[in-house]
Amino acid sequence: MARTARFDEVLVGASRLFARNGFAATSVRQVAEGADLTKAGLYYHIREKEDLLALICEHAISSILEDARSAVALAPDAIAGLRAVIDVHLRFFYRHPDNLVVLNREMGQLSAARRQAVAGLERQYLDLIRGVIRQGQRAGSLKKQDPTVTAFLLLSMLNGLDSWYDPKGRVGRKALARQLSEVFLRGAQEPDPGA
Amino acid sequence: MARTARFDEVLVGASRLFARNGFAATSVRQVAEGADLTKAGLYYHIREKEDLLALICEHAISSILEDARSAVALAPDAIAGLRAVIDVHLRFFYRHPDNLVVLNREMGQLSAARRQAVAGLERQYLDLIRGVIRQGQRAGSLKKQDPTVTAFLLLSMLNGLDSWYDPKGRVGRKALARQLSEVFLRGAQEPDPGA
Repeated sequence: MARTARFDEVLVGASRLFARNGFAATSVRQVAEGADLTKAGLYYHIREKEDLLALICEHAISSILEDARSAVALAPDAIAGLRAVIDVHLRFFYRHPDNLVVLNREMGQLSAARRQAVAGLERQYLDLIRGVIRQGQRAGSLKKQDPTVTAFLLLSMLNGLDSWYDPKGRVGRKALARQLSEVFLRGAQEPDPGA
Repeated sequence: MARTARFDEVLVGASRLFARNGFAATSVRQVAEGADLTKAGLYYHIREKEDLLALICEHAISSILEDARSAVALAPDAIAGLRAVIDVHLRFFYRHPDNLVVLNREMGQLSAARRQAVAGLERQYLDLIRGVIRQGQRAGSLKKQDPTVTAFLLLSMLNGLDSWYDPKGRVGRKALARQLSEVFLRGAQEPDPGA
């Protein structure tokens, strides 16, 4: 499975097909045709269709994890760290929307060992976010809520985007990032005027 | 498609199979066997496998919509209305987790006309939530954020639960409802001590 620019193109095309039609309903032939390859040409790169799904899922979560780690390391405090995670996740979503859809919806189609490898990376991402939340709780900038629940609520808002948000639609990228951060950090409610 | 208690049981079993293995990978025979019916016995209730999926999706969204409407109508203000929507959605999730998983993950497998019917009900649910948000914005209790974005962020937190929350796990139902409402309404951040 040599990672060449050509093969990266193949994965982009496969992501699009899996995101639109589902992994199960997409054939190796369709992926090959979409990439202007013969089936034999595609099998030069992979052993089986599942290799494509595994590579797409790993690419999504490992890219987000790596970028989020770097961004968190540079953030001056927990609030900035959470904003940075939101930015990294949104940036990946804009650049590779199909890739993220496939990770979110089709990961369950992987065989057990490969699913566990991807789940391990997702767990590291969750741990990174929980770590930032705990850091903010210690520093007093974040509420003493259960950090696991808070982290999953943030991940749900980020991973839910593909089901409703159109990057070319009425709500621009900056406006979305601002409002998502605002709702997650400061809530939808006006501060109680009596408080 | 007579809705008898017996057939409701069939739908519960079908939901479980579709949630675990996916709609595409589940056969009518498996649904029939799970319900102690012959295939012919199951075809007394349905014309095709898709009927099961349509009924499961419609049941989930129409139950939530109806209960949310009643709860919102009784709520004294927008904040109470949003808490009531959260409670209704969580209650359905606890009672019919598989049913909600199928709606969230498998609705795309419906044929166009049926998918549009379910999407129409989802749209009504979104409109209900946006209406409550707008009401709160007019009354000054909710921030002047884009109501559509705010509504979808709430729906994402609710619909994301099936991917991480275990009702039998460490975090109890009341604690989850409290923290989800708290994060959505008041955020994860401590109010600025200088404000």
